[in-house]
Amino acid sequence: MRVFGEIAGIPEGSEFESRPDLSHYGIHRPLQAGISGSQVEGADSIVLSGGYEDDKDYGNVIIYTGHGGRSQVTGFQVADQQLSHQNLALTLSCQRGLPVRVIRGHRHKSEFSPVQGYRYDGLYRVESYWRERGLSGYFVWRFRLIKIENSVKVTGVEEEQPIYGKSKRIETTIQRIIRSTELSAYVKTMYNFQCQVCMVEISTNIGFYAEAAHIQPLGEPHNGPDTIENILCLCPNHHVMLDFGGFGIEDDLTLIGIKGKLYKKPKHIIGQTFLQYHREHFVINNW
Amino acid sequence: MRVFGEIAGIPEGSEFESRPDLSHYGIHRPLQAGISGSQVEGADSIVLSGGYEDDKDYGNVIIYTGHGGRSQVTGFQVADQQLSHQNLALTLSCQRGLPVRVIRGHRHKSEFSPVQGYRYDGLYRVESYWRERGLSGYFVWRFRLIKIENSVKVTGVEEEQPIYGKSKRIETTIQRIIRSTELSAYVKTMYNFQCQVCMVEISTNIGFYAEAAHIQPLGEPHNGPDTIENILCLCPNHHVMLDFGGFGIEDDLTLIGIKGKLYKKPKHIIGQTFLQYHREHFVINNW
Ligand SMILES: [Zn+2]
Ligand SMILES: [Zn+2]
Repeated sequence: MRVFGEIAGIPEGSEFESRPDLSHYGIHRPLQAGISGSQVEGADSIVLSGGYEDDKDYGNVIIYTGHGGRSQVTGFQVADQQLSHQNLALTLSCQRGLPVRVIRGHRHKSEFSPVQGYRYDGLYRVESYWRERGLSGYFVWRFRLIKIENSVKVTGVEEEQPIYGKSKRIETTIQRIIRSTELSAYVKTMYNFQCQVCMVEISTNIGFYAEAAHIQPLGEPHNGPDTIENILCLCPNHHVMLDFGGFGIEDDLTLIGIKGKLYKKPKHIIGQTFLQYHREHFVINNW
Repeated sequence: MRVFGEIAGIPEGSEFESRPDLSHYGIHRPLQAGISGSQVEGADSIVLSGGYEDDKDYGNVIIYTGHGGRSQVTGFQVADQQLSHQNLALTLSCQRGLPVRVIRGHRHKSEFSPVQGYRYDGLYRVESYWRERGLSGYFVWRFRLIKIENSVKVTGVEEEQPIYGKSKRIETTIQRIIRSTELSAYVKTMYNFQCQVCMVEISTNIGFYAEAAHIQPLGEPHNGPDTIENILCLCPNHHVMLDFGGFGIEDDLTLIGIKGKLYKKPKHIIGQTFLQYHREHFVINNW
């Protein structure tokens, strides 16, 4: 099973002697490939090991080059990179907000590289991806990764009851984000990335895009639960409108403020208390 | 003129003896009101001074109660708060991503309050807003504010050339974000918050919502300029599609991948090099 996020017992900064060690501990499974991932689930880890001259490493921000198109003999770029396999996996992590483990190797040319072996340097999110002509003249795919750290701590609002130590709390928050993205992926797949309000499918260069929206928001003071009963599959437009009270939803799923009724699969039970909470807190009657 | 963001020469942590001092230095202009802002421009600062018992202060996260509905004699809540005036100003800051200066006063009941006078505690963003029944039983408007700090530093990618000191660099980044939001507001107003692709207006509980999208992205390695020639007014759906190559735009503004043509006001000049950059880097022909 592919694990997204932290590996239990392996803190950021852990060092490893070799690629087989990285693989053994589940930090980065493949022995040769720089990207670990699948075209269906997304990418869970990458290794920076000096393969691409045009990677850039700013520490908290990494510009990473995708896979493919290089000669197995000379190592030179001899063809365009395709948006498939591991490259596609990284774009899925981007669109779904999945965390990616980053490992730096000693051969990676950067002031942030370890002097020997490999070091696990924590979780990053894939902020964007694009195609460009590399130094070779062939197309490569590139990815901008941004470190997940303080931003996560800020999002967690349970500072009032510090039951755990600080690093434990951050870890808990990250695990919650991962759980949330798994639930989100489940709901989006259930609806084939169609919006439950307008039935639109948003097209991108790698397929359809949708957002998972919490009806009663997470976090203080709302404390809505992170469960399927509290999640909708929406297009970005209707997600914004939900969050800013542009429409409400009656218990019988009739929409308030806009015409129509929320589309719902029979197996998707939506909690009426969450709909009620949303109506009371976000929808004003006289707008 | 209302200033959003940092006040030149007044660093975070600066202390002031009185409300007139805060006003004099432009940190928080009004002498009594807790919220400084207008219904058109948004809110630029708030003072936490113990007025509302149900405010919550977690340091980096603040749950702030809006203005109005209290008896001038007893101070008790005697009516519902309205979504107008300063409360509306804070919701505008939320939807437009404007930074809000936060000042804590000594009478504010929190471990983060100064022992005397007032302290400027930096910039926050209004993450969300909602209505609820306060302790009094009347409706109040509440706002969740989140500190802007490390997240900003992460977004700036100029770490390679540290010409300025660290705090200077953060300040520069914040000023750039503010400049960007001013330009964004200008473009959105030009189009009356209508999407230049689908002409949709997104309704919320305080009016229409649109997003300003950069054609050639900001930041390394794209380094698109933050100018009107590089900004479009889009609905969230078409913003996502632009960023993920769901459509491209020809030099003559014909859309690629979807039907139609980009709507454009005569005075809005769009840079063709930005359109070309976007097509080359984000739009794949064979999807
Ligand atoms: Zn929709
Ligand atoms: Zn649109």
